[in-house]
Amino acid sequence: MSDGTNLLQVARDARGVVTLTLNDPARFNALGHEMLSALQRALADVAQDEGARVVVLAAAGKAFCAGHNLKDMAQHPDLAWYQDLFAQCSRVMLAIHRLPVPVIARVHGMATAAGCQLVAQCDLAVASEAASFATSGIHYGLFCATPSVPLMRNMSAKRAMEMLLTGDFIDARTALEQGLVNRVAAPALLDAEVETLVQSILQKPRAAVTMGKALVYQQRELGIDAAYQIAGQVMAVNMMDEAAQEGARAFAEKRQPTWKQA
Amino acid sequence: MSDGTNLLQVARDARGVVTLTLNDPARFNALGHEMLSALQRALADVAQDEGARVVVLAAAGKAFCAGHNLKDMAQHPDLAWYQDLFAQCSRVMLAIHRLPVPVIARVHGMATAAGCQLVAQCDLAVASEAASFATSGIHYGLFCATPSVPLMRNMSAKRAMEMLLTGDFIDARTALEQGLVNRVAAPALLDAEVETLVQSILQKPRAAVTMGKALVYQQRELGIDAAYQIAGQVMAVNMMDEAAQEGARAFAEKRQPTWKQA
Amino acid sequence: MSDGTNLLQVARDARGVVTLTLNDPARFNALGHEMLSALQRALADVAQDEGARVVVLAAAGKAFCAGHNLKDMAQHPDLAWYQDLFAQCSRVMLAIHRLPVPVIARVHGMATAAGCQLVAQCDLAVASEAASFATSGIHYGLFCATPSVPLMRNMSAKRAMEMLLTGDFIDARTALEQGLVNRVAAPALLDAEVETLVQSILQKPRAAVTMGKALVYQQRELGIDAAYQIAGQVMAVNMMDEAAQEGARAFAEKRQPTWKQA
Repeated sequence: MSDGTNLLQVARDARGVVTLTLNDPARFNALGHEMLSALQRALADVAQDEGARVVVLAAAGKAFCAGHNLKDMAQHPDLAWYQDLFAQCSRVMLAIHRLPVPVIARVHGMATAAGCQLVAQCDLAVASEAASFATSGIHYGLFCATPSVPLMRNMSAKRAMEMLLTGDFIDARTALEQGLVNRVAAPALLDAEVETLVQSILQKPRAAVTMGKALVYQQRELGIDAAYQIAGQVMAVNMMDEAAQEGARAFAEKRQPTWKQA
Repeated sequence: MSDGTNLLQVARDARGVVTLTLNDPARFNALGHEMLSALQRALADVAQDEGARVVVLAAAGKAFCAGHNLKDMAQHPDLAWYQDLFAQCSRVMLAIHRLPVPVIARVHGMATAAGCQLVAQCDLAVASEAASFATSGIHYGLFCATPSVPLMRNMSAKRAMEMLLTGDFIDARTALEQGLVNRVAAPALLDAEVETLVQSILQKPRAAVTMGKALVYQQRELGIDAAYQIAGQVMAVNMMDEAAQEGARAFAEKRQPTWKQA
Repeated sequence: MSDGTNLLQVARDARGVVTLTLNDPARFNALGHEMLSALQRALADVAQDEGARVVVLAAAGKAFCAGHNLKDMAQHPDLAWYQDLFAQCSRVMLAIHRLPVPVIARVHGMATAAGCQLVAQCDLAVASEAASFATSGIHYGLFCATPSVPLMRNMSAKRAMEMLLTGDFIDARTALEQGLVNRVAAPALLDAEVETLVQSILQKPRAAVTMGKALVYQQRELGIDAAYQIAGQVMAVNMMDEAAQEGARAFAEKRQPTWKQA
């Protein structure tokens, strides 16, 4: 399966694992209008696909993603054009955030500017030891404003500010220490490490995973009282799900739960 | 001293240190209705006890706390029953949050699901090297929604999400690195490490500690302007307290402050 | 150049680097009314100085800053006096927060109470290996309420709470691990490390840096939808700036951007 533009490869296996591969290596998978549109369409499809269980966001070629296409941007010195571009990019980021199923970034190489933002915005991220991360727009006079949104929600404030002001790269180990990625693997073991997370998610009932992902982000924006109120409601509804009922019975009977799915 | 149900041992020493010990080892100190009620009553008593200075939340047996009792939950496939259970559990968590004095988790073993939440919700936590932590509900089809509330307020977003989606255990060192606990000790030194924190708090005037704890959480939910406004007010009121006046005089006179209490 | 009171040395070089040096070593650079007034004036001057590019906040003598002057405070047991003092201190902290250009703390020694708060409130911080940090007011019966505002926005909750309740010192390495500072250097290399950050900021266009700093803190207080909306707007406006246009053209033409400034 492939997106019509070929800029984005879309593969869905029988398990419901959707792999989206940025496929514009000549432009380091830059997030131009077409790439963003392809991502938007693919994410909309996943959102409708009740058999989808998890998304892996990967990339072809040497880099993971270089962010926006500055060459294109140089040719459109037009406020409305830029507003459209960043609004479109933010819609893609929010589509990842709101996607019912988890999105795992598989970061094999450089992730810069909006490419670094993609990693930060995903729910989980696994990096190769060869990966590196920078919010590098500032080197060209463009502060990575939209990338600062997920950066400040994943890293400590001073570390995020340093990346944003200096544009300097951090390596995969530093990204791990600072909370930008979950795991680091040798390049040859990157897929295995991603697959470990994928399989872990596949073993869980879809309803619990999707209710949970949505709740985590929703409650984070609330005060602690409101957060607990909504979380308790979600958990009670989750518990009424047939899979959770089977899970609780299995626990009581000291056996593994048997779920149709997973 | 002991709670009527014996599920919770309550010990209060002459210093005002209240030790609450979850005491249902056969069920890994599961947080069923009775245990939660006992905790609620004990915390309400501490809230009324003006001589109480700090709470240590400990547990008997092999595990620290296994969270909710899935066996019980399997026998009540009833939305209202679950709503009551999670609302009661959230009330206990918020009672820890709102308790005037600090609560220190003493984690000697496994802390899973709402047991892990208990650790996250405490103001401070000391873990034995033998402790481990997981939000494991997802293994049984139940996403740890209410545990996600304090997890997302203590750990980085991606690490919390990984624990919540995978249900995997992290060890005590990892919990320390990720902000879930303050200190890790060899099992034989766990009590000594807890006692170090207890003594440090006992040496401070109660009024400053209680005003401070409440302020920290209150200001966290506000924008930075409102946060500074309220913090400045609290600090001025704190400074008018006799203990702070004596502290400032002692500082000026280059001597130790002499406080009735502590 | 020097502030009239001599409590604060103000040096501005031709590059637009403003170095503010707390200069009251006999009182460990305590933040009394006069020092705070001097800081407020100096920061107001920087805010008006369109050639200013970055501020380095340094200190003379053995300590970085000991926070409020408890000796003075002991002599004014007056609620209104304390309210004024903390309000003035908070205005200085918010002036750092709102200053258009970044502020880097250069921490060569002890930073305690409101001195530790100064470090936390700066956008970036570099510490000498000889530096140490504590919110020590609690030792004198005064909970560091206003310091808790930036502490909880820079460190994990339990670590901040431990510092606030115990008043214990953490060393520079620990401060680095916990997000309180960006970098640690040997004492002899402290200035070089600060200069690295300064030069990095000087190489960037001022407009991008100032728009960026303001946006980062503004969006942090918003929900993620509103955060993206405002960030996209800021980024589009930033892109219309002549420096960003030149940056994008330079990128397209595979050359370094040429900016008047920097």
